Amino acid sequence: MDESSPRAVTMRDVAQAAGVSVSTVSHVVNNKKGARIGKDAWERVQRAIEELGYRPNAMAKDLVKGRSRFIGLVADAIASTPFAGQIIRGAQDEAWRHGYVLLVANTEGNEAAETEALAMMLEHKVRGVLYSAWYHREVELPAGLTETDCVLVNCFASDSDIPAVVPDEVAGGRQAARMLLAAGHRRIGFINTTTPSPAHDGRLRGYREALDEAGVPFDPALVVDARPDQEGGFEAVGRLLDRGVTGVFCHNDRVAMGLYDGVRERGLRVPDDLAVVGFDNQEVIAAHLRPPLSTVALPHYELGLAGVRLLLGLDEPAPGGRVAVDCPPVHRSSVTAAPPG
Amino acid sequence: MDESSPRAVTMRDVAQAAGVSVSTVSHVVNNKKGARIGKDAWERVQRAIEELGYRPNAMAKDLVKGRSRFIGLVADAIASTPFAGQIIRGAQDEAWRHGYVLLVANTEGNEAAETEALAMMLEHKVRGVLYSAWYHREVELPAGLTETDCVLVNCFASDSDIPAVVPDEVAGGRQAARMLLAAGHRRIGFINTTTPSPAHDGRLRGYREALDEAGVPFDPALVVDARPDQEGGFEAVGRLLDRGVTGVFCHNDRVAMGLYDGVRERGLRVPDDLAVVGFDNQEVIAAHLRPPLSTVALPHYELGLAGVRLLLGLDEPAPGGRVAVDCPPVHRSSVTAAPPG
Repeated sequence: MDESSPRAVTMRDVAQAAGVSVSTVSHVVNNKKGARIGKDAWERVQRAIEELGYRPNAMAKDLVKGRSRFIGLVADAIASTPFAGQIIRGAQDEAWRHGYVLLVANTEGNEAAETEALAMMLEHKVRGVLYSAWYHREVELPAGLTETDCVLVNCFASDSDIPAVVPDEVAGGRQAARMLLAAGHRRIGFINTTTPSPAHDGRLRGYREALDEAGVPFDPALVVDARPDQEGGFEAVGRLLDRGVTGVFCHNDRVAMGLYDGVRERGLRVPDDLAVVGFDNQEVIAAHLRPPLSTVALPHYELGLAGVRLLLGLDEPAPGGRVAVDCPPVHRSSVTAAPPG
Repeated sequence: MDESSPRAVTMRDVAQAAGVSVSTVSHVVNNKKGARIGKDAWERVQRAIEELGYRPNAMAKDLVKGRSRFIGLVADAIASTPFAGQIIRGAQDEAWRHGYVLLVANTEGNEAAETEALAMMLEHKVRGVLYSAWYHREVELPAGLTETDCVLVNCFASDSDIPAVVPDEVAGGRQAARMLLAAGHRRIGFINTTTPSPAHDGRLRGYREALDEAGVPFDPALVVDARPDQEGGFEAVGRLLDRGVTGVFCHNDRVAMGLYDGVRERGLRVPDDLAVVGFDNQEVIAAHLRPPLSTVALPHYELGLAGVRLLLGLDEPAPGGRVAVDCPPVHRSSVTAAPPG
């Protein structure tokens, strides 16, 4: 399709239209203050640039400065979850605000793809790299990362001092349990995940802290681990109902969706027979269950945004290098008052 | 964090380590065949490049060639749907295979963001731009698009000859109806969308063609329009059951999810009382409903891939400039044989 492309407007075209030399155009484009150019000529060049639609070559300008206006973002799962999209959006909005462009690479967990993506970003002299994971976890840092400024987003590396932005899992778990406690529930089940992770440990700790705050003794029998998806939630229902819970905090919204199905299967209803709180606030699910699910939002947009701010030095990393971002509660219709008793 | 960054390895460092001049290193890096460099020197430079981890400046190399190795992708909704992610992944995989890097910009439907993204891509002399929409629709082309090679992905512009890659909605609708017809269903409802779109018209046409093929007369009373989400599916259940359907083709998987809830609400079961087929094969929903949903896949990955192939001239655009990509059926457990009658 090359032949049909209109020829790009060059500096020479601008010079001709403005009746000046190419070097004069170059001085105007690069805003060289010292250059002796008359006000008239300067204005004629500006006008010609506008009329012809001339676009300076950003690569050439970056090259002069020895650094590009790119920020790289390496994501491990753009395609398979809606979460990476929110991280990208948050990072991009903040990058643009400061004149940077986001260069996104998707690795789908493939090490070769990751190495290649990083090499490409380093070759393009990016301002720095955001290295992100679709779920909050510890990561092994690829070698290339140490060759440039880097911020970890939704992940961390214990043995490194690279700054990391992560969700505050503990505070999120506290929020979820508090939603049920505030409605008067005292026997509150927690379907945690079978996957060892910061989310597993953090949300459990938050749940226990909220019970403590409310003076409700912790009963380990009310915590069950299940696969973090609909099937896991469905299978956990029986175990929890047997233990007399009136409310359940689910590790994520998909688990809550499966729990809904299990509750219905028994002829029971959410929230009258069982109050339910999820986690994630997942776009296509949470607001559209029947009844709409009360949950806690994972702040993916904010994680991407905070990552760029750290990278550009606009925010200071916290002591220890880790920034924990809030997980706010989202109130819908899956929690009502606990039955008296 | 600038101060802590290790100094980048330069061509001068390589020259010193290899005991050759900088211009010799440059010749090796740029693979200048004509340059008279001994085999020994060539190998010493290669070794030094590897040992020092020297990375040639891609921007400088691109600049020499007058064009970058970037392909731009403008997406209107990375964050709010999982679909854009698949388009990105397909485009990126194919771009990488041919030595190109994908530069992704997310506009979230904001015209100013779109203009800025395109300007940035043009300034960086991209090889071309993929302009994509998260749902298949006609688009108004932004002015900047005509300044470079372009392919429309999951969208089209009637008044232009810019090539477009879109899903084959008609064939997809045919596939969906055929799944129900093959199981013996004859009274097949279709919950179409209230949104005027190629999906609305194409899937309806495919549904009618499949009925024709099977010798089943078309009954307009069995087609109802509903909001294309869970709430729409839930509200459509009553109308369809009143009309005696035994199977339903839903405009998308979210509609099917709402339909499931409505069916259960009436004490009925999928698939025994009502067979259901969705559309989209949406990641977090289709495989995880109870029972798992038979559906038709929207080929987002393939759309992104095909877009890059068209842009690079690896595939020829079809006559008329539109390429229609297949929507394959995905068989799960929401369709059983129709009751005798």
